This record gives sequence, C-alpha cells and structure tokens, in this order.
Amino acid sequence: MKWWGWGIEGVGFHHEDKPGFAPFVLKAVGLDLHTAERAEKPAFENVQMPDSNAQASFLTALAGIVGERYVSTERIERVVHTFGKSLRDLVRVRSGVIERTPDVVVYPADEAEVQRIVDAVIAEDAVVIPFGGGSNIAGSLEPDPTETRTIVSVDLGRMNKVLSIDDESGLARIQAGALGPDLEDQLKAKGWTIGHFPDSFTHSTVGGWVATRSSGMQSDKYGDISDIAKGMHVVRPGGLLEIRGIPSASTGPSVREMILGSEGRLGIITEVTVQVHRIPAERTIYAYFFPNWKAGLAAMRAISESDAAPSVTRISDARESGFSLATSKESKGVSKHVQNALFGFLKRRGWDLDQLCLSFIGYEGSPSHVARQKSMVGKIVKKHGGIGVGTGPGVLYDQKKFDTPYLRDFLLDMGAAGDVSETAAPWSKLQGVYDATIAAANGAYAKLDRTGWIMCHMSHSYHSGACLYFTFAFVMGDEDPLGEYDIVKSAIQGAFVKAGGTISHHHGVGLEHSPWLEDDISPEGVAVMRGLFASADAGGNFNPNKILP
Amino acid sequence: MKWWGWGIEGVGFHHEDKPGFAPFVLKAVGLDLHTAERAEKPAFENVQMPDSNAQASFLTALAGIVGERYVSTERIERVVHTFGKSLRDLVRVRSGVIERTPDVVVYPADEAEVQRIVDAVIAEDAVVIPFGGGSNIAGSLEPDPTETRTIVSVDLGRMNKVLSIDDESGLARIQAGALGPDLEDQLKAKGWTIGHFPDSFTHSTVGGWVATRSSGMQSDKYGDISDIAKGMHVVRPGGLLEIRGIPSASTGPSVREMILGSEGRLGIITEVTVQVHRIPAERTIYAYFFPNWKAGLAAMRAISESDAAPSVTRISDARESGFSLATSKESKGVSKHVQNALFGFLKRRGWDLDQLCLSFIGYEGSPSHVARQKSMVGKIVKKHGGIGVGTGPGVLYDQKKFDTPYLRDFLLDMGAAGDVSETAAPWSKLQGVYDATIAAANGAYAKLDRTGWIMCHMSHSYHSGACLYFTFAFVMGDEDPLGEYDIVKSAIQGAFVKAGGTISHHHGVGLEHSPWLEDDISPEGVAVMRGLFASADAGGNFNPNKILP
Repeated sequence: MKWWGWGIEGVGFHHEDKPGFAPFVLKAVGLDLHTAERAEKPAFENVQMPDSNAQASFLTALAGIVGERYVSTERIERVVHTFGKSLRDLVRVRSGVIERTPDVVVYPADEAEVQRIVDAVIAEDAVVIPFGGGSNIAGSLEPDPTETRTIVSVDLGRMNKVLSIDDESGLARIQAGALGPDLEDQLKAKGWTIGHFPDSFTHSTVGGWVATRSSGMQSDKYGDISDIAKGMHVVRPGGLLEIRGIPSASTGPSVREMILGSEGRLGIITEVTVQVHRIPAERTIYAYFFPNWKAGLAAMRAISESDAAPSVTRISDARESGFSLATSKESKGVSKHVQNALFGFLKRRGWDLDQLCLSFIGYEGSPSHVARQKSMVGKIVKKHGGIGVGTGPGVLYDQKKFDTPYLRDFLLDMGAAGDVSETAAPWSKLQGVYDATIAAANGAYAKLDRTGWIMCHMSHSYHSGACLYFTFAFVMGDEDPLGEYDIVKSAIQGAFVKAGGTISHHHGVGLEHSPWLEDDISPEGVAVMRGLFASADAGGNFNPNKILP
Repeated sequence: MKWWGWGIEGVGFHHEDKPGFAPFVLKAVGLDLHTAERAEKPAFENVQMPDSNAQASFLTALAGIVGERYVSTERIERVVHTFGKSLRDLVRVRSGVIERTPDVVVYPADEAEVQRIVDAVIAEDAVVIPFGGGSNIAGSLEPDPTETRTIVSVDLGRMNKVLSIDDESGLARIQAGALGPDLEDQLKAKGWTIGHFPDSFTHSTVGGWVATRSSGMQSDKYGDISDIAKGMHVVRPGGLLEIRGIPSASTGPSVREMILGSEGRLGIITEVTVQVHRIPAERTIYAYFFPNWKAGLAAMRAISESDAAPSVTRISDARESGFSLATSKESKGVSKHVQNALFGFLKRRGWDLDQLCLSFIGYEGSPSHVARQKSMVGKIVKKHGGIGVGTGPGVLYDQKKFDTPYLRDFLLDMGAAGDVSETAAPWSKLQGVYDATIAAANGAYAKLDRTGWIMCHMSHSYHSGACLYFTFAFVMGDEDPLGEYDIVKSAIQGAFVKAGGTISHHHGVGLEHSPWLEDDISPEGVAVMRGLFASADAGGNFNPNKILP
C-alpha cells in the first residue's frame, strides 16, 4: 500500500479514456479537471512525526520473539501503520504532520509468536493495535494521540496461509493476515470460493473482515462475514480463545459474535474458520433499467420476499446511474450506439431518462438454477416497470468494482473530498433514510456554501431490509478541510440513525461512527459493551478508545 | 402447565391404539407395560417446600406495581415457577421434596411494570428469574438452593401480544411472553408466519426462545431464532436496552447476540422484533427411505451443498426409524398394507430393513418452487440409494411433532427415564459424533448394568454441518435415580465435545450443560463471558449461577 493513499504504488485512476468524466465532475462539485492544479505526490522526508518511545529492552524482547528483521521502528513503517484509508486519514497523512504513530511494528510468523508478543506487551504495559490490510475507513487503527505508553502495531501480513480445508464440511482454516486475493487464490486452486468480496477485497484481510463485521458484494448468497466466519482463534493475555467451526450453537451469549466487530479490543485474531463453497458452474451479473428509484427499490424488496435467491441485488439511484453511464469507458459494457438506441426506445415509452436507475442482479449455481432465478427475477422486474439490458454493464461492474478508492485519491489530488457512508434499515424505512440523508448532505453543502454531490446505491438485501451506500463529494476549502468534512459526514450519520438506520452496515465503528453508537444500540446497549471491554481488558492494552463513544 | 409434568392437565400419552409400542418398549428398555405399576399422579398437598422469605414491605411494593392479584406467594405458584421440564426437574418435583423455590411470583402487564419490578428488586437486593413458558430442559430456571436473598420469579405470561406488524419489511414486534400458538395465531390472522416451530412450541415463548437460542423445525428456511430475532427490548437496572430491528449492522461486538442465549443474566427480555414471512402457497413434508444411516447422512449433506433450498431436512437413524414405524397409529401415515408391500419390494432389492432410515424433507413456497425443489432433492436422494415414499409419513410427522414430551411423562410414571440431548457439528464430524455418543451411552448403560436405549435423528442443516438429536431411555433404580441419569447424560455430553460437537445446538446451557462449556468455547471464551456477566450485573441479581461452570 502507498503510505499516502490507496493501493499499489504506480496504479491510479485516470479519465483520459472516459470522455464523460470531466464534464460530470464540473457539474457535480464545480471542479474543472482541465484547469485544476494537481497536488504533487507528498515527499516522505518532509513528514513530521514523533520518535519512537519504545525502550531498547522491549525491542530486544520483541526481536527475541519474531527475529530482528521483523521488528521495525523505521519512520515509514510507523506511518504506514498509523492510519487506515478514510478521507480523514488521507488528508492527515498528506498534511505531513502526524501527531502520534505506533512506536514499533512487529511481524509475527505464527500464532505462538503472537501469544509471546501479547505477553510481552502486557509485561511492558504497552498498547497493542492489530493491523491487517490497513484499508479500514472508520478510524479503527489510529493510536490515541494522548497515549504515553509504548504502542505496538502487530502486522499479521506474514500469516497469510489457508491452513487446511475440510472438504466434506466446506470449512477452511485461514490465517488472519491473508488478503482477499491471497486466500481466494489458495481456495480457488482447490475448487473453492469464500464468496466474500467487499470493495476493499484486494487490500483487506480475513482477520480485518471479522474485526469490523465486513460484508461482501455477494452477501445475498454467501452471507455477511458474521455468517461466514464459523470459528476463530484470538490471542489474549490469558491464552488462546478458541471458537471451533460449529455450524450453530446454543452456548449462551455468543462469544463468536463478541469477537466479530471487536476491532482489536478483545485480543488479536490469528485464525478464522470460514465456510467455503464449491465454485459454481455459472456466475453471472445481469443489468436492468428501472424508470425511477422508487420502482427499483420496490422491485428489490419484492425479490427479497420471493422464492428467488440471487447472489447480488443492487440498484443505483438516478444520480449514481447517471454517473456510471457518463463515466464508463467506450470499450466496455454497452456501446454508446446500443445505449443511445435503447434510450430512444425508453423515451418513446415515456421514461424520464434523468430518473433512470441502473440495477445489477447476480446469479450463481448450475445453469438451470441460474436460468430459473433469472426468470423469477425477470417477472418481478417487469411488474415494477423495469427492463433487462443484458450482461454488458454487468461485466463493467465486475471489472471496476475494486477501483473506486483510486478515484478518491485522484479527486483528493485536486482538493475534492470524496467519501462513503453506508447504513442498513428495514424496507419500510429505506426511502425515509434515503430522503433524510440526501437532504442532510445538501443542507451541509448549503451551510458550507459549496457545490456538493451525493449519490447512492442499495445493495446487500435481507428478508427484512437492505443496505444503502452513499458516496459524497465536494471541494474542500484550504483553511479547515476536515472541519468541513465533519459537517457533511456528521449530517449524514445523524440522518441515518434519526431516520431508523444503523450507523454502519459493514464498515465498523472505530472513532468515526462512535459518537452515534448510543443513538443506535441505546445507552444501555453501550453500557453492556463497555462492561465487556472493561472486564476483558482491564489494563486497556488492546486498541483502547475505539468503538465506544 | 401441570405442576408435575408436561402440558395441559388431562392430556397425556396413551398407547392403546399403537399395538407396536408395548413390545418395542419391552425390547428397548426391558419394561413390560402390561405388568408395570404406574405411579399415581403426585398429590400436591404432600409437597415439602420452604416458606416464602419475602418481606411484607417488598410484597407491598410489588403489589403497588402490578396490583395485588398479580403477586403470589402461594405454594403451587411457587412450585410451578421453580423448574423447567428436564428429566431431572420432573424427578425432583415428583419426589415431593423441593429444596428452594422462588419466594414470590409476579405477573407484570407491560414493560413499564417490568422496569419498576427490576428497580424494586435491585432496591431490595433480591434475585430475579424471568419465566416464559417453563419448558426449558437445561436447568435455566431453578433457584440456587443456597440463595438466601428473596427470589422473584417474573412470569411474562400476561405480555402475550403481537404489538405491530411492519408489512413492508416483514417485521413483527411481539411481547416476550407470547407462547408459540398465541403469536402464530395473531400473525396468521394477518397472513404471516414466524416459521419458528421448536418441539416445545405449544408451551414456550418468544422471550424464552431468545433467552436460550432456540431453533425450530423449519430452520433450514427460516433460520434459528438468532437469525429471526432482529431487535429486542431488555429491561435492566439502568433502564431499557433497546436493539432496533435492523437487518444487519456493523456496530461492534453484537449486543443483540449477547442477549440471545443470556438466560435472564443480562436483564428481562420484554419485547422481540422478529422477521415474519407471508404464509407460503404450499407447505408440504415428503418422506424418503434410505438403505442405511450413512447413505442418508451423505444425501442430507449433498442437499445442503446443492442449489436446493428445502425448509426441513431430517433423517432418523435405523433405531429411531424402527421406533417411528413400530409405534405409529394404524390410521395415520402409510397404512400397514402399503408399508408391507413396500418393505417386500425393498427386501427384494437387497435392503436390510433393520438398517432402513426414515427421512423427512420439507418444501415451502409457490407450487412451481416446491415442485422444483422436490425434483432437485429427488435426484440427490436417488443418487444416494434412497426412495421417496410420499406425503403419508410426513403428515404423521407434522401431527405428532409436539407430542413427544407427553410420552416421556408416561414412561416416567413407570420408572423409565427418557430424555434428549442434542448437538451440532461440521458434516465431516457428524458420523464420529454419532458413533462416539452411541458408544458412550451404551458404555453408561453397561456400567449401570441396565438395558438402555438411544436413538437419533439429524435435523437443522447448514452449509457446513447439522444438528444431531439423541433420545435415550432406561429404567432407573429406586435408590439414586438422578445419580444414574447423570452417568448416562454426562457420558453423552462428554462424547459430544470430545468428538467435535457443541454441548447444545438449541437447548441452552443452564446448569445442565455448563460443566462442558470450557471444553466447547475454550476457557478464555468462558472468561470473556464471565466478565460480561460480572460487569453487566455486578450485584448478581439476575438469574445468578446459570450458564457459567
């Protein structure tokens, strides 16, 4: 990962092959890409940061556990392990002034080493923050700037193996530090898939997914990580907490579900037992157009209630649909020629194309299963006034799904803040949450007197509701960019809970969402959680001050 | 409920219309029903029990909250609220000597009254044990005999309403004290079903299901109660803990999943928001025969891995199949004539009928959906050497599914202990758990020098495993019946965890399963749970000493 942005050094977003992109950005946030000045890549040598406070004796102890080459106090290592990749993180790391970093980064080779590290941390009364892929956008990773104890970042990157696969049960034991592509390749080689593909897939780990309650694009079929992760190992000061891979159990309050979402506060996740599936004979994504958001949302609800079981249900609102269609490459998806012919046809049928919503539905299984699901969905789509437009745009979706974070870096280079906030709510409240969120964002933009943009898609359907995923952007002022960002982000998060949604469907709590936790799960719910952390980590050594308000 | 047994006064098991039953019992546990002496119904006036220790001032305070007629210190009320319905409970209540009962039983009308009761309990430093249907068989209800504080049983029976239904989301708010038939009738009147039908359905409540992590027969389609219960209200000393009915959330360790299975230790559950489904056009159960257990189990696994999505997958081992076929009524299910013709056919095909296993698969949905599921399952059944035998036995299953507990009382009248233990494990370990459990039970019977019986069915399929449900019986000696029972029950529970299963799939922990909790979720898992209870209930006022070893 780049120390100052998303993804691999040398890879970035470019719009030269997307003629609709620049006009779109100009209209949406008032930024002219042709004239805007692009920030230089920040120079690392200019970064101001505190020195490591780690005692030599402690470093020696750590080196005695993992070997000298796997203990680092180097500046770049410490910066890389300071933040995740939220907008707030990127702005701060690019600012060149970092208040607090971990004092030392260690790379254990296995669970036994993690246990010895934890024991050493407790003996030293240090603080430990587990680190997976570093893709978190909820502020779950950063050290408390007021922390005076030594802070140890435990990078699980070397623990990236699929340890074993139980073929009969469809259960795989995977080391916590395995990145998405790592583990999926190892599974694929043996005919399996985990079916968990969050947007962060390429740069996030299975341990991180568990620690933050992640959800992937195909969750309609495979479930959220809370469904997928059946067992786990967590290293604690008292020893190894081990939840075996049992399909379902009635063993009191679920400790498994306490580890899920714990963001390092209950110990270090070292291994996860996940359910895996045989790679299906067919895996396909179909695109549909709906005349408007309301009709599309109603169709998604009807699908979730029906006998059909697609792997993906997703619909973009008119703004996001317009964005997708305007910014796609000529060579991919539906050709402009076909698209224009189709649009002409729809106009003649009375569609207002400004209201058009693009939907993707995924199907997986045997060819006959896929055909049947598609037929059931097709009938529901038709009933709600939508039409199928084939696999063209679906291919596009499948190809670009992991690229969005690069786009954000690109915009940030030009001073535009782009970020995402997502929620989940019952079907009956989705339209209300949607309306309230759009209004809240626009209210914030008005307050800032700035042209701002917000768009949304619905994804991750459940029987009783779904997730709404908002993307928003505006050009920040130079004076207090994060203060401005806070105004917009707070308006959105506040709108979520007030309108009946949760503060996050799959990004975790961290520092970013904790101010609204009591509004979400009630003050007593937070009190119970606070007691859990206080009792499980009396010394406050494990990623303190996260999650709780 | 009867104070000394299962179900409604006047209803019981009888075998006069089941000619195969008496010979079966003779063979299985050596009990001759024609000569055995049947115990008299115990006389309540002979029961020895402690007087209530509740202070007059405290009773006055409670009466001020719920009204005088809803506060009781009567002997029969206190006995009814002392136990659940485990074999151990029944033996003790029939013995006529009860060590400790609640000191007072209260019946709140609503959540506000529950809050005031909890506040009064804390002010008095009393102990509170919530009471739903009283069907628990894990020892989750009984007071600690050494408890010197006043014990209050809070019976939620008056809180039995479906408060509202969100038609668009398929979410119903239900008061915790609603019994299965209560709530299902209220839902049914509006075209909905909860789809949760545990064996205890007629005498258990939605609050109890949540408190013990219940699972119903149609869990393959509708999920366990942990999937069904999306939101909940829990009254705590600090006020109301409220988890809203959100489809899925990433809000730290799941407080919802801490309430699930908490058996009263975190507060009193007063309301549950459950997902409900439209009553399907078709709901049917088909029966299948398999040549042996191994083949049947392999077929169930293949179904769980396939694209098919039945509502029930269940197979009985050869012993339970023999029991079902021998003890069914002539007039129900497959007629003996048809059955004998079928058996003749199977024998000619080389089946060993002593190994025959009876399976039930349920289908729900539109007629075309049901037909397709049935066709997919049919192919898998055939591939594993099984055959479909129609809906006849399925009707039988559907009709008698809630009657088994009456049978247990009947046997107990004649001195035979009958009870159940259930577990869940990955597919790869099911045969091992099965073998180990049968061996452990038989080992215990040998140790006791008694003829004993154990039979099993597999139910509740998941992608990665399933539940095994064992029923066992033997004639207890007069001297130390519970000591003998312990030997058998302990052997079975120990075999579960040792062979890779959980201590309980859906009966909870209580006192009955807590000795093995550390073996199941590891000592560190128990330590974390212990901390949760200690911090959430520092005074130990909420159903203390349950769940934890």
